[in-house]
Amino acid sequence: MTSSGTRTAEVLGLGAYLERTQERVEAALSSYLPEVEADPAAACPARLAQAMRHSVLGGGKRLRPVLCVMAAEACGSEGAPALPAACALEMVHTYSLIHDDLPAMDDDDLRRGRPSCHKAFDEATAILAGDALLTLAFEVVAREVRPGSAALRCVRILAEAAGATGMVGGQMADLQAEGRTATQGEPVAGTLAALEAIHRRKTGALLRAALGMGAAVAEATELCTQALDRYGTAVGLAFQIVDDLLDVQGDPTKLGKRVGKDSELGKWTYPRFLGIDGSRRRARQLAEEAVAALEPLGPRGEYLRGLALALLERDR
Amino acid sequence: MTSSGTRTAEVLGLGAYLERTQERVEAALSSYLPEVEADPAAACPARLAQAMRHSVLGGGKRLRPVLCVMAAEACGSEGAPALPAACALEMVHTYSLIHDDLPAMDDDDLRRGRPSCHKAFDEATAILAGDALLTLAFEVVAREVRPGSAALRCVRILAEAAGATGMVGGQMADLQAEGRTATQGEPVAGTLAALEAIHRRKTGALLRAALGMGAAVAEATELCTQALDRYGTAVGLAFQIVDDLLDVQGDPTKLGKRVGKDSELGKWTYPRFLGIDGSRRRARQLAEEAVAALEPLGPRGEYLRGLALALLERDR
Repeated sequence: MTSSGTRTAEVLGLGAYLERTQERVEAALSSYLPEVEADPAAACPARLAQAMRHSVLGGGKRLRPVLCVMAAEACGSEGAPALPAACALEMVHTYSLIHDDLPAMDDDDLRRGRPSCHKAFDEATAILAGDALLTLAFEVVAREVRPGSAALRCVRILAEAAGATGMVGGQMADLQAEGRTATQGEPVAGTLAALEAIHRRKTGALLRAALGMGAAVAEATELCTQALDRYGTAVGLAFQIVDDLLDVQGDPTKLGKRVGKDSELGKWTYPRFLGIDGSRRRARQLAEEAVAALEPLGPRGEYLRGLALALLERDR
Repeated sequence: MTSSGTRTAEVLGLGAYLERTQERVEAALSSYLPEVEADPAAACPARLAQAMRHSVLGGGKRLRPVLCVMAAEACGSEGAPALPAACALEMVHTYSLIHDDLPAMDDDDLRRGRPSCHKAFDEATAILAGDALLTLAFEVVAREVRPGSAALRCVRILAEAAGATGMVGGQMADLQAEGRTATQGEPVAGTLAALEAIHRRKTGALLRAALGMGAAVAEATELCTQALDRYGTAVGLAFQIVDDLLDVQGDPTKLGKRVGKDSELGKWTYPRFLGIDGSRRRARQLAEEAVAALEPLGPRGEYLRGLALALLERDR
């Protein structure tokens, strides 16, 4: 994310905060992933461990972990009690990228500037690495989040967001909208409402879950939980609009993936419905809605406010 | 499973119990799976719901759910408090079959006597249906198992059994042993010990988890939990040996899948190491170990005892 010129002092603070959080997330992720041991009796085959580490530790903005940690801290948590939940979100996000990149799905060779998992290894290994990461996410939450009631709440939030009515359902609807798999009677109309219904599930649900899990770990009040949920919904859509804009105007070196792919595939995107300027305006409006939603949190919501605005300016 | 002539009275009781449990599991599974609704705003796309229902409700012995329910009842649970955990186990088992059947993995067209998921739908849909089932398993446990402490314990048992050090790791090691994916330095020796190390993870871990989740739901004593764990370990291996024998001698009509595939693929199997008779003896010995492990449960272990012996005679 780049800083916005008019908010230098505040965004510098945000930048340092982001850097520190990303470092903590990186270290925690590495500690939760299986080690690469070339021991036939070792429970996790070395190749599987390598594939998981390749994909998870291969860079990335760590947006979902950052949102989760920020949400917990905005609700009064201190220290780093949200780190396991934050890592679980990144594992689920990474598994979805591994599976989406498969030849039978989006068929992408490049991810985060490196070969996607099935290119670096092979398809079978990539399928299994994704499966293992999804499973590990729930294991880490159940084992590490305290108290148990917060852990259970996190499992439920994560599963609902990631499953058939959330992220996986959104990917399915997206494939259908592109005509890459059949529909079973369900209409997949090319309208803005249909586009938003896909994104609400495909990317929005997990971003919202990041806020919800942060609130759960902090055992937040209902008022704070709802404020964060409204923030998450608005930020999730804004994030997707910027994603669509980056596919039109982004720099592939910074993005670490190809651009222009959406229009090649005839994908429904925000720029296609609203134009470039219209999409930018809609993203800004959503970011402002997100900021407004934080009002009940008071000064503790400062980093989340900064992040919502910084997302508008991101270049990767 | 067929009845053994010498144990008619007892096995009849077991047969009726199995039938009743299977019916309960079937109804509960159907209630947890997303409905097929042709509504574009519906959260779960109709095609995804169809694929999930096709694979889960397409028959199967329901061995893991049955073991889970039996374990809970053997520890004193009454009513059906283990049903959500039992269904979660079947969802995880089914997802693993869907992914294992994919062309990049075992490339099987037939499963439970019907087209496998990617044949009935397509590869992308099958990958997503598997992902959604794995996720739904954790959702159902977190939402339905009571009390919360038992739910959390079940999430952890299930995730540990299903993940990189359990089922997924076993499938990876199996692909490596068949030379279908590379190794990364780890030796994959063709020894009986190496074969058992694969099965302990690939099929054994989830069978053991079925017993552990049943014990967790029943809030069983440590003594009962350990007895069930020893039972599960022995039954898991016995089950796999019978599976290998069925691939040599089974009836494809009853099995609902091809036979002779293991030797075509040059797979390491029990008959290859121990011969047909030696494999039978080993399976019986393990079933007897399983029965002996149940001693602390007293008469409540009767169905589990009957099941361990009936598994030796199964023809599908």
